[in-house]
Formats: sequence, C-alpha cells, structure tokens
Amino acid sequence: MTTPRYTALVQTLPATVPFVGPETQERARGAAFTARLGANESVFGPSPRAVAAMAQAAAEAWMYGDPEVWELRQALAAHHGVTAGNVVVGEGIDGLLGYLVRLLIAPGDAVVTSDGAYPTFNYHVAGFGGALHKVPYAGDREDPEALIDRARAVDARLIYFANPDNPMGSWHDAATVQAMIDALPEGCVLALDEAYADTAPDGAIPALDVTHPRVIRFRTFSKAYGLAGLRVGYALAAPEFVTSFNKIRNHFGLGRIAQAGAMAALADQDHLRATVARIAEARARIGQIATENGLTPLPSATNFVTIDCGRDGTFARAVLASLVRQGIFVRMPFTPPQDRCIRVSAGTPADLDAFAAALPRALEEAVTAS
Amino acid sequence: MTTPRYTALVQTLPATVPFVGPETQERARGAAFTARLGANESVFGPSPRAVAAMAQAAAEAWMYGDPEVWELRQALAAHHGVTAGNVVVGEGIDGLLGYLVRLLIAPGDAVVTSDGAYPTFNYHVAGFGGALHKVPYAGDREDPEALIDRARAVDARLIYFANPDNPMGSWHDAATVQAMIDALPEGCVLALDEAYADTAPDGAIPALDVTHPRVIRFRTFSKAYGLAGLRVGYALAAPEFVTSFNKIRNHFGLGRIAQAGAMAALADQDHLRATVARIAEARARIGQIATENGLTPLPSATNFVTIDCGRDGTFARAVLASLVRQGIFVRMPFTPPQDRCIRVSAGTPADLDAFAAALPRALEEAVTAS
Repeated sequence: MTTPRYTALVQTLPATVPFVGPETQERARGAAFTARLGANESVFGPSPRAVAAMAQAAAEAWMYGDPEVWELRQALAAHHGVTAGNVVVGEGIDGLLGYLVRLLIAPGDAVVTSDGAYPTFNYHVAGFGGALHKVPYAGDREDPEALIDRARAVDARLIYFANPDNPMGSWHDAATVQAMIDALPEGCVLALDEAYADTAPDGAIPALDVTHPRVIRFRTFSKAYGLAGLRVGYALAAPEFVTSFNKIRNHFGLGRIAQAGAMAALADQDHLRATVARIAEARARIGQIATENGLTPLPSATNFVTIDCGRDGTFARAVLASLVRQGIFVRMPFTPPQDRCIRVSAGTPADLDAFAAALPRALEEAVTAS
Repeated sequence: MTTPRYTALVQTLPATVPFVGPETQERARGAAFTARLGANESVFGPSPRAVAAMAQAAAEAWMYGDPEVWELRQALAAHHGVTAGNVVVGEGIDGLLGYLVRLLIAPGDAVVTSDGAYPTFNYHVAGFGGALHKVPYAGDREDPEALIDRARAVDARLIYFANPDNPMGSWHDAATVQAMIDALPEGCVLALDEAYADTAPDGAIPALDVTHPRVIRFRTFSKAYGLAGLRVGYALAAPEFVTSFNKIRNHFGLGRIAQAGAMAALADQDHLRATVARIAEARARIGQIATENGLTPLPSATNFVTIDCGRDGTFARAVLASLVRQGIFVRMPFTPPQDRCIRVSAGTPADLDAFAAALPRALEEAVTAS
C-alpha cells in the first residue's frame, strides 16, 4: 500500500495556492466581506448582453463547447485586425501561461521576471522546473532594460512582462515596450501580459504586430469585461506559435457558456467603454480617500490603485489586516519595497464609502501596532 | 527572428486534437447536423434548477470562482459519504487526467491502457513523454487481468481503466474491478474512469474506498447530469493523493458559473434519475433500430449504444460517413476489431427517428462502396 510514485520534479513542489481566495478568508472570519476590492475584479459587472447570452447558453450546456473555439477566435481576430490563426483562447490567462511555460521550459531552463510580479506565472515556472531569475522594480515600475539584460546574461527562454503592471498599476509607453521587443535576445520569448490593456491610457500599448515569432500578448475577459468567473483569456501571436498550443492544451477545456459569454461581451464595446469610465471615476475616488488619510496613491493604468502607506511592509500589512478585519477585502504587493503599499480595486461608490470609513481606523491600529 | 525554443519533448509532439468537434464537421459540410448523437452528451439536458442557478450566477460572473471549490467539494463529499479532503474538482475529467499524468509521468515512464480506449488519456501521456503500453480488448471489454499483468511486466506507474467502458459501452461487475484493485502492483496507480457510473446497472460499481493510496476514481457532470459544456469533473481518492493536485492545478480554473451549476445539478437527483430512465429508453430504441437493420447492438451500461455493423472497419467507416453526410453526427471506435462498430449516443425520439431514417441508406451506400 505504498503511495503513488510522483515524478522527481513533483516531489520538490509544495502544495500551494498562488492567491488565497476571499471565500477562504470569509470562511475563516465567519462573515462575508462588505466590499470585495482585493482581486481586481470588475464590480461593475459584465455586459447585460453577455449575461443574457450566458443564461441562454446554460440551457444548451449539455453540449461540449467547440474545441476549435472557431466563432470566438474569428470575432477576436476581427476585433484586433488579425486572423483567427493568430488567436489562441484558453482557460483564463492563468491557463494559457501554464501552457506557455510547458511549451518552452524544461527543468533548469532560465526564465526572467520582475521580483514582485505575477505569482501565478512563477507558480507555473516552478511547476515545470524552470530556473526563475528576478529583476527588481525600478521606481515602482518593471524595468524593461534590466529584464532584457538579465535574459541575455542567463540565456533565458522566456521573459514575463506586464504592461500595465500588477500589483503596482504602473505602465510604460508604447515606444519603451516596442524597444524591449526590438532588443529581445535570439531564442527568447516575450510573454507580454496585457490583462489591463483596456484601462491603459492612450500611448501605452504598442501596435499589434503578429509577425514577430517570439512575442505573445495576453488579453482577458476577466478585468474590464467583468467576466473573471467565466475563465476566458486569449493570446495573440504568430500562427506557428499559436499552433504549438494545440500540442498540449485541454482541447475541450472551454465550455459552451464561456464561449457564448465572451462572444457577447466582445460585441458590447459600449459596455466596455462605460465600465472603463466608471473605473476611472473609482480610481480618482480611491486616490482622494488615500490623500485625505495622508497616504500617496500611485498613478494607475489599471482597474485598481496601489496606495503607498508611507512606511515599511510591516506597517502596510497591519493596515491590510485591519481592513480585512473590518470587512474590506484588499490585497497588497508581496515584495519589498513595494510591500509598503496596499492595493485597492475599483469599486462602486458604496464599496468605496465602506473603504473610506474603514481606512482611518486601519491606520490608527497599524500605528498602535508598530 | 528565430522561432521559440520549444522543449525537446514538445518538439516531438504533433499539433492535434483528440476528437474533431461536430462544429468543425458542420462548418465543413456547410450545414448543421439534424441529430447530435456522436459525443455521448445528454440531449435530455441539465436539471432546470441547474439552468436557473447558472443564469443567476451569470450576473455574478465578475467574481472569480472560489479556488478551493469549497461548497461543491462539501456537497460532493456528502453525496458520496466521504470528506471534502477526498475530493478534487477540475476542468472536466480531461483536465484532471492531464494533471494526474503530470503528477506521475516523466519521459519514459510506463503507462498501461487498453488499445482503443480513451484517446484523450493517451494524448496526455504522450504530452508528458510517457511510454504507453496497450493491451487488447477481450470480447469487446477491457481486460483487467491483462492490464494488471502488463503493468507488472513493464513496472507501470499508472493504469487507465474505464468502467463502464467508452467506446464499447461494456462493463465489468464490481467484484472484478475490486479484484483488479486488490491485485494492483506496488507503486502503480489505478485511474478508474467512472464517467458513466450514473448509467451503470446495479452491481457494476465497487464500493467507494478512499483509503487506498493508489486508486483514484473519476466522475463527471458531463454525461448523465447533462453539463458537458460546463466543464466540471471530479476525482475521489485518499487525502494525500488529492492534495498533490494542489501542486500543479490551475487553482482559479473553475469559474463561478461552473461551481454554481454543478452544485444545483447535484442537488437535483430526481432529474438525474429521470434522465437515466430516458437514457434506458433511448438505448432500447437504438437497439431496436439496429436489429431492424440486421445489425447487432452491444449491451451498454452507458448513455450510448455501440452497434456491431457485422463487417470490417472499412465497412463501418463507410456507414458512419454516410450517416454524417445525411446529417447524423455519430462516431466509432478507432481500433480493430472494435472499429467494425459505430457508436450512437442516446437521443430524443426525434433524434432517433432521424437516425432510423438514415441508417438503411447508410448501409446501402456502404455495401455499394465495398
């Protein structure tokens, strides 16, 4: 009755979760959160047309989804001015990042990211045995030149770079990102995570060029489209690169409701624009609340605002703990010196009223604790 | 501008799809199918309570699903008389089989299955470089003793065994399966695919024993529950085995609608029972149609009937091609001698009328072609 024989690699991995879900925290505290502002979801919700499409698809959910995701890929291609052969759709960007790492990284292969960037990417790299090389942020932004230099130095097969960035909300202009693409070392892939492209200011997103064989750009319905709970992300790349995903992906992984919901959401660009406007209002309000409490809101190109609490990580963690105790779900960066901040997602006016009411006490408790 | 550097393993893999979807065939033929009887979906649909739950969850789809899948795991545990620690939920059995292979199989490791069994399992084994050893069917059933013997001979880390079986619809009794579990070699895991457990006759499914460290049993909402398009499967195993999935799974892969739909479907056992009764009626009707056309329906414990066309694979493929041309979506086993058969999923009376109308011409065309 011995245990299963796990692979040598799996034996080295911890059983973990990249992010503890708010539901887990709610079960631990025995009460629901008053405001859900920690996962950069869109509290403004999906398009009503998407809701209607999903409800209609629910009755047809006895059928598997199309494994080629044909209609959605056609619609995304038309939306972006590329061809369906440039589009791969997956189970959220998380799912696609896992496939990407699996395609490129064998044990010991070098991967470069920023220290404090997306933990789920790091989870996938560890899961396939990659050697992760981390570059510090520079001025609360990812450092494109340092990422490229490190990739060259370690002969990386893959760089992860998010623009706009999570968890800091910062961004680079299109010319800087384009210069990074132009400087990409031979044999290195750039995973350009553009989950927050929809909320970025003009001039932050470089023109799409799906001819580069080693640049892959990730987009999602989880953020401004308001469909995090549907699990639909996609990537845009050269056809040869896109085709490689068909070697390993879960072909029937994208269900019928997911495909129908994403189609309808994409078709309702008016809702997307209205949501982006509401996000901008919420960002301004979060900034105002921070300032009124003597804190510094960082500039944001995303659907959240990262707030500099003005002291160290211990202080910011105490602020966050008090907010959570008071029923406000927020998160914060993990890595110094960015862990001096807390991260607050765009919320409704009522959500932000609750945050505004809780913040003074959180600061007071954090001061007392330190 | 060189291409990405894929891993050595990935370079050996074909870009493929384990099953061509009916939508692909519909696009190729320029018309929708009249009857969708090829993917063992449940044309009788999901519970109306599940449809309502999914429609309600659609409006809340801006929230990620609980990464611990807590409520659904609790409900499944109560349903099966185990604990939540015995349950892992994933993106269909397909997704879970991929995780299982990844946990256990490094390049060159031995895996045993039946020649002609589930292609998606083989796809995952190939995708992680496993060495697949195939055992023939015996009398159109999987051969438990031969699977065990081969596993012992090749020092397999993993055996795949489906009871009831797809694509043949056959089954073994619980005592035979239990004997297989008892004879499982040290260090070998038995993946017991019970996707069709809900339609199996009494006495076919061994009692659940979640204390065995190397037996993992797969169930799904895709078949009798009528939710193939939702992508929810689960596995039951010892807690240590279940926990290992947390090393590699896509923690946020199960969306909010999927969890809500599965919860409601599980709670409506009346609908499940009614569906199983309708499946039994449909199986009888398919058998009758086969017999009326001089063909032999094989006994079935599933939601489909495999029909022996009485000649070789070339003949059966011609029958299938004609049915598809006539708008009847069906599939067939890939491997001789099982490829003398076609496989017809349970359908509505109207679906089966269409099948009955098309079959004589299909047989005529197949005779002419041979």
